[in-house]
Amino acid sequence: MKAINTNKQAYLQQVKQQNISAVLNVIWEHQSISRVEMIKKTGLTSGTISNLTKELIQLGIIREYEAVSGTVGRRRIMLGFNPDSYRIIGIDIGRSTIEVVLTDLTGNVLLSVEENIAQLRGPDQILAVVDPHVNRMKEKALAGGGRVLGIGTAVPGPMDLEKGIILSPPNFLGWDGYPLRDELTRRYSLPAHIEDDSCTCALAERWYGIGRNSRDLVFITMGMGIGGGIVTKGELVRGTNGLYGQVGHMTIVPDGEKCACGNYGCWETVGAIQGILKRSGGARTMDELMRHVREGNPQATECMERTLQYLEIAIINVFAMYDPEQIVLGGRLYPYLSDHIIELRKRVRERTFSFVKDRVHIASATFGTSQSVIGATAVVFGKLLTSPLDTLFG
Amino acid sequence: MKAINTNKQAYLQQVKQQNISAVLNVIWEHQSISRVEMIKKTGLTSGTISNLTKELIQLGIIREYEAVSGTVGRRRIMLGFNPDSYRIIGIDIGRSTIEVVLTDLTGNVLLSVEENIAQLRGPDQILAVVDPHVNRMKEKALAGGGRVLGIGTAVPGPMDLEKGIILSPPNFLGWDGYPLRDELTRRYSLPAHIEDDSCTCALAERWYGIGRNSRDLVFITMGMGIGGGIVTKGELVRGTNGLYGQVGHMTIVPDGEKCACGNYGCWETVGAIQGILKRSGGARTMDELMRHVREGNPQATECMERTLQYLEIAIINVFAMYDPEQIVLGGRLYPYLSDHIIELRKRVRERTFSFVKDRVHIASATFGTSQSVIGATAVVFGKLLTSPLDTLFG
Repeated sequence: MKAINTNKQAYLQQVKQQNISAVLNVIWEHQSISRVEMIKKTGLTSGTISNLTKELIQLGIIREYEAVSGTVGRRRIMLGFNPDSYRIIGIDIGRSTIEVVLTDLTGNVLLSVEENIAQLRGPDQILAVVDPHVNRMKEKALAGGGRVLGIGTAVPGPMDLEKGIILSPPNFLGWDGYPLRDELTRRYSLPAHIEDDSCTCALAERWYGIGRNSRDLVFITMGMGIGGGIVTKGELVRGTNGLYGQVGHMTIVPDGEKCACGNYGCWETVGAIQGILKRSGGARTMDELMRHVREGNPQATECMERTLQYLEIAIINVFAMYDPEQIVLGGRLYPYLSDHIIELRKRVRERTFSFVKDRVHIASATFGTSQSVIGATAVVFGKLLTSPLDTLFG
Repeated sequence: MKAINTNKQAYLQQVKQQNISAVLNVIWEHQSISRVEMIKKTGLTSGTISNLTKELIQLGIIREYEAVSGTVGRRRIMLGFNPDSYRIIGIDIGRSTIEVVLTDLTGNVLLSVEENIAQLRGPDQILAVVDPHVNRMKEKALAGGGRVLGIGTAVPGPMDLEKGIILSPPNFLGWDGYPLRDELTRRYSLPAHIEDDSCTCALAERWYGIGRNSRDLVFITMGMGIGGGIVTKGELVRGTNGLYGQVGHMTIVPDGEKCACGNYGCWETVGAIQGILKRSGGARTMDELMRHVREGNPQATECMERTLQYLEIAIINVFAMYDPEQIVLGGRLYPYLSDHIIELRKRVRERTFSFVKDRVHIASATFGTSQSVIGATAVVFGKLLTSPLDTLFG
């Protein structure tokens, strides 16, 4: 536990930040809540709640409205977030596409653009594509006195989060050592943040998706690779080397093919797109494979069945290791598997401890293919809710 | 983040608890530390440090001593824990043995006893065996005005920690619903705590073993079953259903034998004692199997090789999933495998991302077969360091 600084000034600031954070979180959890309920939930005094909510209303982050409840028509003053108080810009830099969005404070997309960058390499070329989109979103956001809370950016890991630097991600040439965070801050004069793209997917759920009610969730993103983002007690877990939740590198086929990571038979070698196509009997794309399956091609059918078995084992392992409230599946590959999710849920339940069978929840990503970029904006929103004063007044 | 109560009385108490916790933790991490360093490490003012350390010295928990450092012989007043200020009683209730220990505050064993209970069943019979030992330890501790900080108890999970109740652990008849914590508190008039035995093993490392320098560690205990205790950022992680870190139930043999948990090919089915003996070619105990291996029996040799391969895959998966600083291996089975740990480390390193190869650390349990009972005392010590006021005056 961190010490509470007793240098009076710093200390009062610390207490205030902690209490504003508690107030914002309780509003977020309940979507709308009265001051009386807020006192109960936070344990703060009515005086403190009254002061803090007044300040947050003045800042425009939350707003009051009147709710009429029940048959007697009792009127109550409720508090909720004010979505239009701030805008957030989200950037997702992938290996083949970039996506940029402008959202309101609560994750609603106001503007969104996607562009293919498969032919481009390195920060200079790729940021040149991103640049005009970000500028346009920023202009739009600032028009008429609007405010931008920050820029969140999803990129392939690994990275040095403290320094804001990208570290040699596989198949992502030219980015090793690139100071992406500071470059974005410099270009747009806005607070910028970077985050691993599997983690942004998890954060999209944590803040804007099913995480409002689930503090323990695992997001699995399946595409050219397989990644995981793990939220425990509402917080992203990173591990010692920033490699927590490398679910794609658990062994699924003992003595299987060698993986880029050095291990053999990783889930990624058989469960990501390349691995699936390898045993498909000639399909070059997932669409082609699905066509072969529909046409009754036995090798294609067998290939898909295998893929689902691997997914089943992987999910069982994820339950055994992380005991999450929810497993959420997404990524470019997932739409090809999503028809089987009900069957998958059933099979996984049959293979878990009987006393938790009913607590096995497997869901589809809330934001589909935009999961990662929405998560990039959720990074900024999450900072507001955990360190409100630092985020607002830097 | 929790709100800080602004009811003045409750609030000052909360701040004080948080700051004492910070002071105790920094002393624990450094083993001995000067007040000046303490100010730097905690960010607290010299006045606060001076008051809090004075109070802790009066309570007897820490003590001053003089250190002479360097060639110039400069004398400095250092602070460290006072091991004799309190005693802790640890109880480990296993399926075939019970162990009871009396330790000083820093985990040094003063008295220890182990007894076979393989023929006994249920709380009445087993607690009757535990009882005289605990009474003797308590008497010894209290003789001459000594103080006991509490009783920590390791038991097979699952359990309801909030209520202090055991929930139907497999192969542990008669304990379902038993209010163990309250019963121990009643019998011995001391604060009692219960904890899952895989978790106590992890806590033994976290507080008294390698955890002084490793905040992220995974303890794997191998015996009749295989369990895991996961410490992240210095804290035990429990998951949604108290089933976090069920490493024994990750799939190691796809399409393998059905496990008690419902899954197929769990590591426990092939890597725990029963599973190993099943393919040993007739050995009835691990000692017998080891004799067959030494005699060059090919089936026994093949059986051991397989066991080590399964362990290797399991450890690689644990690294991929939890990215810990340390994996620590223990349990009744481990002594039969420990000769191979150097080879195992080498093989695991060859199978992990090159940029983290040097950061793969695999260690043997610090407390051998007493790991779980030492961990039971570490539960109490951990409570002192995280909630000092509640633990001392609660």
